[in-house]
Amino acid sequence: MNATEGKGVEAGERERRRIRGGGFDGATAGLAPGNVQANLVILPQTLAEDFLRFAQRNPKPCPLLAVSEPGSPRLPGLGADLDIRTDLPRYRVWKKGELVAEPTDLRSFWREDLVSFALGCSFSFEAALLEEGIELPHITRGTNVPMYRTNIPCAPAGPFFGPLVVSMRPLSPADAIRAIQITSRFPAVHGAPVHIGLPRMIGIEDLDQPDYGDPVPVKSDELPLFWACGVTPQAVIATVKPEFCVTHAPGSMLITDLSNSKLAAF
Amino acid sequence: MNATEGKGVEAGERERRRIRGGGFDGATAGLAPGNVQANLVILPQTLAEDFLRFAQRNPKPCPLLAVSEPGSPRLPGLGADLDIRTDLPRYRVWKKGELVAEPTDLRSFWREDLVSFALGCSFSFEAALLEEGIELPHITRGTNVPMYRTNIPCAPAGPFFGPLVVSMRPLSPADAIRAIQITSRFPAVHGAPVHIGLPRMIGIEDLDQPDYGDPVPVKSDELPLFWACGVTPQAVIATVKPEFCVTHAPGSMLITDLSNSKLAAF
Repeated sequence: MNATEGKGVEAGERERRRIRGGGFDGATAGLAPGNVQANLVILPQTLAEDFLRFAQRNPKPCPLLAVSEPGSPRLPGLGADLDIRTDLPRYRVWKKGELVAEPTDLRSFWREDLVSFALGCSFSFEAALLEEGIELPHITRGTNVPMYRTNIPCAPAGPFFGPLVVSMRPLSPADAIRAIQITSRFPAVHGAPVHIGLPRMIGIEDLDQPDYGDPVPVKSDELPLFWACGVTPQAVIATVKPEFCVTHAPGSMLITDLSNSKLAAF
Repeated sequence: MNATEGKGVEAGERERRRIRGGGFDGATAGLAPGNVQANLVILPQTLAEDFLRFAQRNPKPCPLLAVSEPGSPRLPGLGADLDIRTDLPRYRVWKKGELVAEPTDLRSFWREDLVSFALGCSFSFEAALLEEGIELPHITRGTNVPMYRTNIPCAPAGPFFGPLVVSMRPLSPADAIRAIQITSRFPAVHGAPVHIGLPRMIGIEDLDQPDYGDPVPVKSDELPLFWACGVTPQAVIATVKPEFCVTHAPGSMLITDLSNSKLAAF
């Protein structure tokens, strides 16, 4: 254990060890609170280089926290003991765009050409908003955040292209301004919103019909705020239909040793 | 001259010297670009303490850059040579709420009990927005920014109380987010907006009917953003009708040695 990291490392290690041992296979929200959780994408090396360029060109939907060496299941920057094959509660294994398995352990699927990508997730900035006393309606309601495909194209790289997907949170105008300030401090987890207030401008015709997640009403004294969403790379990869690909199962994230507050840019 | 300040001091001194010598009595916008310009309020010492507390309690409309010693016309923090009695192009002298003179020199009005207040002005944050390529419609049109009395009360102090006055700038949603980020860096010149998007919530029924300044249309792909405005203390002082009071004449600001960029909080 790195003594300078303290409790965050302990909590992250403890949860990963529990998951690794088969003691937990559910949603990770609320585990190791204060620790960064990450989206996972694993691709064969032949596609990994293009995907890396895609992430570099689209940092708001694809904020890269770590990339593995080809074939290595380690991401030491996120946890000294971390093994990407065992440390998430549940995975989704895709072949040519089709979901072929939802295992709790990747070891039988592992290949020496696989590259793992850990991408920042909105849990971190939501924690910062909740700490400031800003209520997030989807959390209050216990539903998934509503997500929408926009008319904003991602910058393409190799075979990867497609629209930006955004998540929506309705807030009062005063909370909206504060939320823009707070999330601006966290570029590694999607950063500031990409849009506020006029959903038609970004190709969203009906807020009650999200493309992913559950609808949340926008009250007459609220504005809808739209953040770049980690579903974007998953949607983009789905259109490429790689011969092999792994992602985390929805809600079953990678728990890291990083603390959310360490991600603050200022 | 303070060698560490360089060009900002030189430009500030040069413009103040020109104004002091009677060589300029117009609007200061565009003079000594990059230098902070300030709103001026001068009050008798009997009211100054209450006004100082009013400013402390309402930092968004009343961001205090400097306060003089009673009777002293100097504000050395804003310029070593600065003489508040001569260095603004034009003043307004008020007695019991009535405008009694608009002199270009205050020396014949000076009293040994006067305290001067220099308050941050939106010129500084507008310069930062323009530098980022954000177009400000009232500047493009060459009109005064539209200003509105809101239903938001200022925190009172002594005889000083009244509603917050805001200035409005319409921006595209993307520019609105960027403008919130940029102006958040400048708390000494009104800081982040106090409202966005829903003017009725702050008591503004008709954007086409500003209480001060000139109307600016809000296009269908724009949101109105509202910043706390330096007209607030002037409106509050007007209701108190002090036996004696001086303000700058509209547009004829105090040019300081401070650079706008030095005001950035981060």
